[in-house]
Amino acid sequence: MDYSLLKTIDSPAQLRALSRDQLKVLADELRAFVLDSVSKTGGHLSSNLGTVELTIALHTVFNTPDDRIVWDVGHQTYPHKILTGRRDQMPTLRQFGGISGFPRRFESEYDAFGTAHSSTSISAALGMAVAAKLQGSKRHALAVIGDSAMTGGMAFEAMNNVGVTDNIHLTVILNDNDMSISPAVGALNRYLARLMSGRFYTTAKAQAKKVLEHVPPLFELAKRLEGHAKGMVVPATIFEEFGFNYIGPIDGHDLDSLIPTLENIKKLSEETGHPQFLHVVTRKGQGYKLAEADPVKYHGPGKFDPSKGIEAPAQPPKKAYTQIFGDWLCDMAAADERLVGITPAMREGSGMVEFEKRFPARYFDVGIAEQHAVTFAAGLACEGKKPVVAIYSTFLQRGYDQLIHDVALQDLDVTFAMDRAGLVGADGATHAGNYDIAYLRCIPNVAVLAPSDENECRMLLTTAYRHKGSAAVRYPRGTGPGTAIQEALTEVPWGKGVVRREGSGVAILAFGSMVTPALAAAEKLGATVVDMRFIKPLDDTLTVETAKRHAAIVTVEEGCLMGGAGSAVLECLHGHGVSTPVLQLGLPDRFIDHGDPAKLLALAGLDAAGIEKSVRDRFAAQLAQPGAAQDKLRVA
Amino acid sequence: MDYSLLKTIDSPAQLRALSRDQLKVLADELRAFVLDSVSKTGGHLSSNLGTVELTIALHTVFNTPDDRIVWDVGHQTYPHKILTGRRDQMPTLRQFGGISGFPRRFESEYDAFGTAHSSTSISAALGMAVAAKLQGSKRHALAVIGDSAMTGGMAFEAMNNVGVTDNIHLTVILNDNDMSISPAVGALNRYLARLMSGRFYTTAKAQAKKVLEHVPPLFELAKRLEGHAKGMVVPATIFEEFGFNYIGPIDGHDLDSLIPTLENIKKLSEETGHPQFLHVVTRKGQGYKLAEADPVKYHGPGKFDPSKGIEAPAQPPKKAYTQIFGDWLCDMAAADERLVGITPAMREGSGMVEFEKRFPARYFDVGIAEQHAVTFAAGLACEGKKPVVAIYSTFLQRGYDQLIHDVALQDLDVTFAMDRAGLVGADGATHAGNYDIAYLRCIPNVAVLAPSDENECRMLLTTAYRHKGSAAVRYPRGTGPGTAIQEALTEVPWGKGVVRREGSGVAILAFGSMVTPALAAAEKLGATVVDMRFIKPLDDTLTVETAKRHAAIVTVEEGCLMGGAGSAVLECLHGHGVSTPVLQLGLPDRFIDHGDPAKLLALAGLDAAGIEKSVRDRFAAQLAQPGAAQDKLRVA
Repeated sequence: MDYSLLKTIDSPAQLRALSRDQLKVLADELRAFVLDSVSKTGGHLSSNLGTVELTIALHTVFNTPDDRIVWDVGHQTYPHKILTGRRDQMPTLRQFGGISGFPRRFESEYDAFGTAHSSTSISAALGMAVAAKLQGSKRHALAVIGDSAMTGGMAFEAMNNVGVTDNIHLTVILNDNDMSISPAVGALNRYLARLMSGRFYTTAKAQAKKVLEHVPPLFELAKRLEGHAKGMVVPATIFEEFGFNYIGPIDGHDLDSLIPTLENIKKLSEETGHPQFLHVVTRKGQGYKLAEADPVKYHGPGKFDPSKGIEAPAQPPKKAYTQIFGDWLCDMAAADERLVGITPAMREGSGMVEFEKRFPARYFDVGIAEQHAVTFAAGLACEGKKPVVAIYSTFLQRGYDQLIHDVALQDLDVTFAMDRAGLVGADGATHAGNYDIAYLRCIPNVAVLAPSDENECRMLLTTAYRHKGSAAVRYPRGTGPGTAIQEALTEVPWGKGVVRREGSGVAILAFGSMVTPALAAAEKLGATVVDMRFIKPLDDTLTVETAKRHAAIVTVEEGCLMGGAGSAVLECLHGHGVSTPVLQLGLPDRFIDHGDPAKLLALAGLDAAGIEKSVRDRFAAQLAQPGAAQDKLRVA
Repeated sequence: MDYSLLKTIDSPAQLRALSRDQLKVLADELRAFVLDSVSKTGGHLSSNLGTVELTIALHTVFNTPDDRIVWDVGHQTYPHKILTGRRDQMPTLRQFGGISGFPRRFESEYDAFGTAHSSTSISAALGMAVAAKLQGSKRHALAVIGDSAMTGGMAFEAMNNVGVTDNIHLTVILNDNDMSISPAVGALNRYLARLMSGRFYTTAKAQAKKVLEHVPPLFELAKRLEGHAKGMVVPATIFEEFGFNYIGPIDGHDLDSLIPTLENIKKLSEETGHPQFLHVVTRKGQGYKLAEADPVKYHGPGKFDPSKGIEAPAQPPKKAYTQIFGDWLCDMAAADERLVGITPAMREGSGMVEFEKRFPARYFDVGIAEQHAVTFAAGLACEGKKPVVAIYSTFLQRGYDQLIHDVALQDLDVTFAMDRAGLVGADGATHAGNYDIAYLRCIPNVAVLAPSDENECRMLLTTAYRHKGSAAVRYPRGTGPGTAIQEALTEVPWGKGVVRREGSGVAILAFGSMVTPALAAAEKLGATVVDMRFIKPLDDTLTVETAKRHAAIVTVEEGCLMGGAGSAVLECLHGHGVSTPVLQLGLPDRFIDHGDPAKLLALAGLDAAGIEKSVRDRFAAQLAQPGAAQDKLRVA
């Protein structure tokens, strides 16, 4: 395909000059371009194939960028990016220095609101709509939200607030594909399925087409369409109970439905100032058979050949930490029937597919609902169950209050398997797991553990699980150094680090993923390396003793410097009256964009070379001279 | 009243032996006891007068403590406490060493789940119900939740999950009084009002009575009641759409409705395993005319004479920080029309009554919805508005992800007025604002300010507001030292502390509320005192310079030690290669129970005497000798 029409579109304004037939051609080209582009860069595929027509229709009907579109989650915005002047940048998608895989305000005026975490769009759009009202502006604010994102509590908080706000130009578009990353769960999804099932959906589609054939004056049409939708199709939806004007469901791949309906909604919104709700039904992977058949597999693929589809890798790579957790979870569940596993809609991402198969009664996908996930776990723990909440570091931010108020305060026995701790690479700053050490260790009763390799990950999971109290084990995205994994479920001594290399002069206290580069740096520096294992409780004894035996201490962690593990070391040393100088290495106090994780770590000075350089720059004098006796270097 | 019946009740099992008429007498005694008790200790009143009959009915029908009752928010549990063996402890309510104003697992086996923050009950009860199912137990789990708490997003997350869970014995009881602390807002409340309006409510009550007169076999009755409730009274409630069996609304002050209905629900739950939803209508302040007329005023009174009601204090006390914020908000709103004020259902608590009156178009009570509040503010900020989010430190934990992902990451200009930072006194550990310094300062782009007195509070609010970016100003509950407040809206230099006392030997870097006791301690110690004002950005220059001029540094803050402001000082000093010994004073790494704040601070060593003692204990050698020249004490 030569994309002859698509190539002429550099801004949405140009869409508005195209005929309906041309838009249909454009949709085909855009879909092909998305597939071609993602197959070369990797990225999100299924969701973007599903939003091609909706994106065209929105930009055709609404006056973007003056009208604001907030894309919930935002991983479905590749068609939007391509149509808003970023077509040529698609080869740089999610790569260092390239465009983001999510909308970003810094990237384009068409990206009205940055998204990535779920369920924020209605709140943000309401803020924009209220601002417009206060400013006397007629601009529209639209939230495009998936059915799974609708299960996130804050979407309901926003709906509850929108429903009593008048004189605003706000439209919520429910992009209903009955599937988040994992298949959708929950009562709302079941309800939506009823709304779009058989008769209702067919009727709605037929009604829309029939009404549109007559082409009456637009407002009249809109009123009739509204009447039809309300009176005949779905008599009283929960969205209407919440104060919205509900229209739908309509076919989200049919521009002949989408465009007139959106035009009507726009008109209705302007005439009434009443919040509008459009229910659009789309299909993940639409137009690419392989993705239609297995949208989960094609949710976020790496590079692949579109003609062949995703192929199994030639040889299995190293086991990722996610898989190590998944294996451990099954093994521990087999050993302890009290174990229950909880995921907020991240079955695949958290490595729980096998666990669900083997222990379906003990597997709980609660939907995109991190707050509920944590307190649900607390309830289970009250009754003697041993819940393991599998959650990304960045998403635990959503359950922070619940962790404090429901788990820690009641000293309940909940284990958090905290995946994606540290830099996450292509997903960028929105998904960064950089803050968990700081935000967890300040909370009483919560232990925080960080394994340095695959085998230690399994051991620390076992240790945290068997610890009577709440504990979080943080491990990074991707693979570790590749250590052999022992089958036994082995504990390590609670709160104790291990000296991994005996050196002199400088001692590096390394946490989690930083132990490996620290060891490499230490070879060059002649330094001691301690694998601390525990961020909290910190191994005070080892920390103080090590500080007393060395001229200088270096801490290194894949997490924010402010309030991080290095600060825990400082607190410990000063608490014990030890004034050994400390160099803290970790992630700086700024958001770090997407890119290859190894490169990003190197830029932050967190690879072996970077650690070595930082230590030499700061502690040249304290480094041991070759052959120098340790005791000469001791500090009183 | 001599409480002759109430005095005989030491456990709920005894209720089950009483006749309906006796229970009614008991209700009268219990209501009088609550009023009498709260008027002597202070505490929550309106909500507890509203739950008298419901509490009696629940404990009569369900087999507590084996059946679990989770009381959402939990401030309405005084009748529950009185009936579960804590009647004689009511005079100690919310006082140091006494019983808590909330349910606590550590306090009683009848307190199945500790609550205080809103909207957690359904999640916790589901966890308990699922645990019972896994254990093969028939025990019931009940969540009693107010209509306002239902607007919190996590309640919906839980409902969404419950609705697809079968074979559990779970009942949600909606205690609908159309009022949280502030009058209820939002679409859900409007919807509930429709459900209980005129015809529906009357019909429901009549139906229940009529059906009950015949006394058919219980299960038959239940089915019929269910049919009536579903078919005749409220044809399709959103709760049924969510998969619950909905019954109600019924009169929550009528034991003749409550007890048989609960008995039916219990039976239905056992027979069907289907989640049940009972809609109960109660009245805050029920039975005490003054509270009925003004439930907000009687929400959480101090001590008062029940025969006279709450009287205006004889002379106005010092202005509380809440009031200083409220005044500032009005003044800044008058000066800057971009200002908008947002509260998550805390109009009174956050001092925004006057602001709402004067600037109704710019006042937004979004309901109990902290997540939405923060992202709504972000949306407003995108459009050039200047939102001020008034939120307690403890409740910002609920909006933590939104603060990171929607505000900080996009570097949006949102001001957080963070009330109740530090120890909060009678509300205890659940409401403690101890963690905000640690959880905020690790986030890039977020400034954190802490005023030391009333006038500085006003200045720092002005400074944070005018700062182009997000900033949080933390101030404590209650009053400050009593400084005169200047009318002008004055800024202070960004990121700069001020030396408040020049001493020698030891320098105390004090944050916020700790400046006053630090100054008092310093008088005895001859120490320097710096009012740091900014936790982030920290005044690095002043910190380093001060450390170099003194033999020792003491940091003191009303917040957790781990990761707190003292750790920021350590990070700064070691980052600059300064090894001056530091003593960190602050709140220890454990949850601190309720009690008089001054007493709790003293116990934590955070009053003047405590600070002085800690400094002498640690830095006796470094304290300046009387008459010693400063330069002799300097450290290289």
